[in-house]
Amino acid sequence: MTQQVTLYTAKICPYAHRVELALEESGIAYNTFEVDLTNKPEWYAPQVNPASKVPALAYGGPAVDPSQPSSESAKIAESLVLLEFVADISGTRLLPQDPVLRAKARFFIDTVSNTVAPAFPAVIARGEPVERMLTAIEKVQALLPAEGFAVGPEFSIADAALVPFLARAEVILKNDCGAFDEGTGLEAYETLSSDPKFARYRKYFGDIKARESFKKTFQGELIRSKFTEKTTPIRAQRKAQATSSQ
Amino acid sequence: MTQQVTLYTAKICPYAHRVELALEESGIAYNTFEVDLTNKPEWYAPQVNPASKVPALAYGGPAVDPSQPSSESAKIAESLVLLEFVADISGTRLLPQDPVLRAKARFFIDTVSNTVAPAFPAVIARGEPVERMLTAIEKVQALLPAEGFAVGPEFSIADAALVPFLARAEVILKNDCGAFDEGTGLEAYETLSSDPKFARYRKYFGDIKARESFKKTFQGELIRSKFTEKTTPIRAQRKAQATSSQ
Ligand SMILES: N[C@@H](CCC(=O)N[C@@H](CS)C(=O)NCC(=O)O)C(=O)O
Ligand SMILES: N[C@@H](CCC(=O)N[C@@H](CS)C(=O)NCC(=O)O)C(=O)O
Repeated sequence: MTQQVTLYTAKICPYAHRVELALEESGIAYNTFEVDLTNKPEWYAPQVNPASKVPALAYGGPAVDPSQPSSESAKIAESLVLLEFVADISGTRLLPQDPVLRAKARFFIDTVSNTVAPAFPAVIARGEPVERMLTAIEKVQALLPAEGFAVGPEFSIADAALVPFLARAEVILKNDCGAFDEGTGLEAYETLSSDPKFARYRKYFGDIKARESFKKTFQGELIRSKFTEKTTPIRAQRKAQATSSQ
Repeated sequence: MTQQVTLYTAKICPYAHRVELALEESGIAYNTFEVDLTNKPEWYAPQVNPASKVPALAYGGPAVDPSQPSSESAKIAESLVLLEFVADISGTRLLPQDPVLRAKARFFIDTVSNTVAPAFPAVIARGEPVERMLTAIEKVQALLPAEGFAVGPEFSIADAALVPFLARAEVILKNDCGAFDEGTGLEAYETLSSDPKFARYRKYFGDIKARESFKKTFQGELIRSKFTEKTTPIRAQRKAQATSSQ
């Protein structure tokens, strides 16, 4: 019997986006509940995820309103745990059967965890130089095969782990709306868009953007407006500091 | 057909120990090659692991002398990738079939990666207070079921991920041979040995130590002597500094 699947998610969150992509690609039927991260429902932490983060997933139990989670469903948290979980419940659609290819997918994910994923908050929220993001993208790009996706011709959880960060980085660099120095985002975007060094990234990311799963799960305009909102006061404060210290 | 398995390992290394435990528990036949980390063979990085770390595993290809790795074997690195790999090639011996239990194992591993694993170098090599290790052990202990192992009555890769750190921490605290303040290691060891708060840890770790896989793969005396060697100059330097600043 198929078990019900409810994903607690937030459009802004790259970790939650990983799981949305995997679920879309899996062909599994699922419900979503959008958690307002600025005003989380009081039942969320005690009844769904004690860490009070998205993503989290309720699996099995009766079909209920997501805002009244059943105690009979299993609650699972952590995006990378959830990617493996979605792969496990969807046969070999998201992870090949061959153990060496599975290891390749996991090594790719491990590399994402050590490069692009930490570069994202560092550059976008803490204002480290944008070069850190470019270097991270180069490292992951180096693992891509000449064609197709992270571990071959089929989309896998390795792609789902990476793509939410590439998508957010592109929008934020292009619109220059991160905590990095003004103007450097747009420059980095231009490098990514035209430097021959990033040709494989561009082809890969283009192939990803053409997929229904991506179109259905990514809202670039929302990312742009939220990050512009966050960045405006940071930039204003920096200008004020620069002026007052002159 | 069964493929050949060669593990490149080092007795001192907790990450490599994870994979030794998993292979022992898997029942799979395997060879090991001990890499001298203070004097790595020149062929190791180019032919086995470009990151030049242990553990790494060569899978498949002809049966060769491990010091002359075949280009036909797949080379796999990263301890957590390797734990999943060993689980994949050994049926359900190291990871249950049920997707929710598999997620539990992976959530446990994720918690180890965020608590005990980083506390180990912090306390033992960088000299942070031993409390950090006790707090980390408490967090992982809280995830253990009332009896048995990390995700149930059977040993799994979740246990393999944790145990090398518990084993090294015990020896180093007991012998007070880490970079932490002199005397505080032994105190922490006594807390772990007698405080009712750590009863579940003691039972768990006792059950682990009774297993053949642990006895066969852990050399406590080697850990004690290596860490005593590393710690002696650190302690001497601290005493000299303390004296000169008086
Ligand atoms: N390690 C977690 C990270 C998830 C995470 O940090 N989610 C953020 C949103 S992007 C969150 O829910 N934060 C809690 C909050 O905003 O209160 C995972 O991979 O799932
Ligand atoms: N993230 C790696 C860490 C492995 C690691 O750091 N291994 C150490 C020994 S404990 C190593 O080989 N270091 C390289 C060196 O000593 O030159 C894993 O989980 O496998």
